[in-house]
Amino acid sequence: MRELLVIGVGAGDPDQVTVQAIKAMNRAEVFFVIGKGEQKQDLVDLRTGILDEHVRGDHRIVDIVDPPRDRTPSDYEGVVDDWHDRRARVFEEAFSAVDGVGAILVWGDPSLYDSTLRIVERVLGRGVVDFEYTVIPGVTSVSSLAAQHRIVLNRIGEPVLTTTGRRLRGEGLPDGVRDAVVMLDAENGFTTLSGDWDIWWGAYLGTPDETLISGDLRTVEDEIVRTRADLRERKGWIMDTYLIRRR
Amino acid sequence: MRELLVIGVGAGDPDQVTVQAIKAMNRAEVFFVIGKGEQKQDLVDLRTGILDEHVRGDHRIVDIVDPPRDRTPSDYEGVVDDWHDRRARVFEEAFSAVDGVGAILVWGDPSLYDSTLRIVERVLGRGVVDFEYTVIPGVTSVSSLAAQHRIVLNRIGEPVLTTTGRRLRGEGLPDGVRDAVVMLDAENGFTTLSGDWDIWWGAYLGTPDETLISGDLRTVEDEIVRTRADLRERKGWIMDTYLIRRR
Ligand SMILES: C[S@@+](CC[C@H](N)C(=O)[O-])C[C@H]1O[C@@H](n2cnc3c(N)ncnc32)[C@H](O)[C@@H]1O
Ligand SMILES: C[S@@+](CC[C@H](N)C(=O)[O-])C[C@H]1O[C@@H](n2cnc3c(N)ncnc32)[C@H](O)[C@@H]1O
Repeated sequence: MRELLVIGVGAGDPDQVTVQAIKAMNRAEVFFVIGKGEQKQDLVDLRTGILDEHVRGDHRIVDIVDPPRDRTPSDYEGVVDDWHDRRARVFEEAFSAVDGVGAILVWGDPSLYDSTLRIVERVLGRGVVDFEYTVIPGVTSVSSLAAQHRIVLNRIGEPVLTTTGRRLRGEGLPDGVRDAVVMLDAENGFTTLSGDWDIWWGAYLGTPDETLISGDLRTVEDEIVRTRADLRERKGWIMDTYLIRRR
Repeated sequence: MRELLVIGVGAGDPDQVTVQAIKAMNRAEVFFVIGKGEQKQDLVDLRTGILDEHVRGDHRIVDIVDPPRDRTPSDYEGVVDDWHDRRARVFEEAFSAVDGVGAILVWGDPSLYDSTLRIVERVLGRGVVDFEYTVIPGVTSVSSLAAQHRIVLNRIGEPVLTTTGRRLRGEGLPDGVRDAVVMLDAENGFTTLSGDWDIWWGAYLGTPDETLISGDLRTVEDEIVRTRADLRERKGWIMDTYLIRRR
């Protein structure tokens, strides 16, 4: 492989792809698709939709199947490191089998809670294969959330934190942070907040199943908890994110 | 005006515009351009480049000139409020003079340190004019920065703060924040950090003048300070942003 393109494709809507991403996709001969073997059919369909809509001419899809991860490690750090290494070897092998230009499509933007760039650096660090690589930025699910609610993430001149559901449930927010975007929240982290907050929540942004709820946190939190559970049950998976703002 | 489209157009590169933004631009009959009367010619050229590249058919450009702001107010809050009100009336007038669909192009994404949505809400709140409005998300300058440096903003599972240069110089970072993106920094806020940090800095991202510097903060800070001063001197203005990461 001569060159690898890591392409942010937005939160799900094929129209959220940039011209730069379309040009990049049309340079790629091979699209690597990373998964755990069993992929959510909806996500596969969304990606197929993006390729069908924007890519002219021949291309191949190559699956990269993540090696299984030991879920009950005794030596946690060692196990994770070993897993990353096995993962890098799997990518290395897939990359070596390609001539020309390869591409990896990333949901949203590659710079936000995505492991693609880390794994690429790890592959290059092993020194076995070598290639150019370029990152094409995309619209994040956070910008999608804000656009659909027509809100600005920050208050005038104030900071905003981007964090995970796990952090919110665990440490909570750093002192003084009054505005935060939460991603990767599997367990309704917003219910652990005390005090007066507003929330702007969105699921499956940019897709036909997009669902939005906003308002005073105490007033809408039960509705969000119920809606999340219903949607997850119905579709088998959920992708959602939200902004919380202290009054 | 029947409808207003607030369209994020990315950090400067016309190719960073999304398909959704192109479709929206082509629905607009009037583009409102907001300025202080004297606009940076480069920014005007960038915007003209985006319209020329992507918009087919007739459209008009209407300038909205921000009312002057009292810079030495005794009653600060009152003065700011009054200025926002005068500003809303100027927008209201411009909007009323239009039939059909109007659009405002916003650099990057409208949800990040941009006042367009606040002013639109204020105009609607006055109740004199009424219209639908839609927000089209864009690629932020932050995603551009990360893409050009090929970095992920967050460490695995960790939060990242987005803040301003003024905050960084003033309060510094909240306790526990080890990764931060800084925008709107007129005065080299990074020089006020103590401890061991890495920095990824970028100016004029997505434009022909794009400039990148990265490395250990103590090693590269003088170079960044000098480069910023040189560029600002040469071009008369600067737009830059950076990620700082505590070791
Ligand atoms: C692994 S992270 C990837 C984020 C992605 N790189 C981005 O820029 O948006 C996945 C998380 O992003 C958020 N997310 C991604 N796509 C989303 C969508 N279409 N609707 C709502 N949230 C989404 C959710 O919080 C999800 O848990
Ligand atoms: C008023 S804010 C607007 C941010 C914009 N809405 C976005 O999403 O990027 C302006 C600040 O954004 C950053 N910025 C915007 N465009 C940039 C560019 N092309 N290169 C570097 N920084 C940029 C700078 O920090 C600048 O001070």
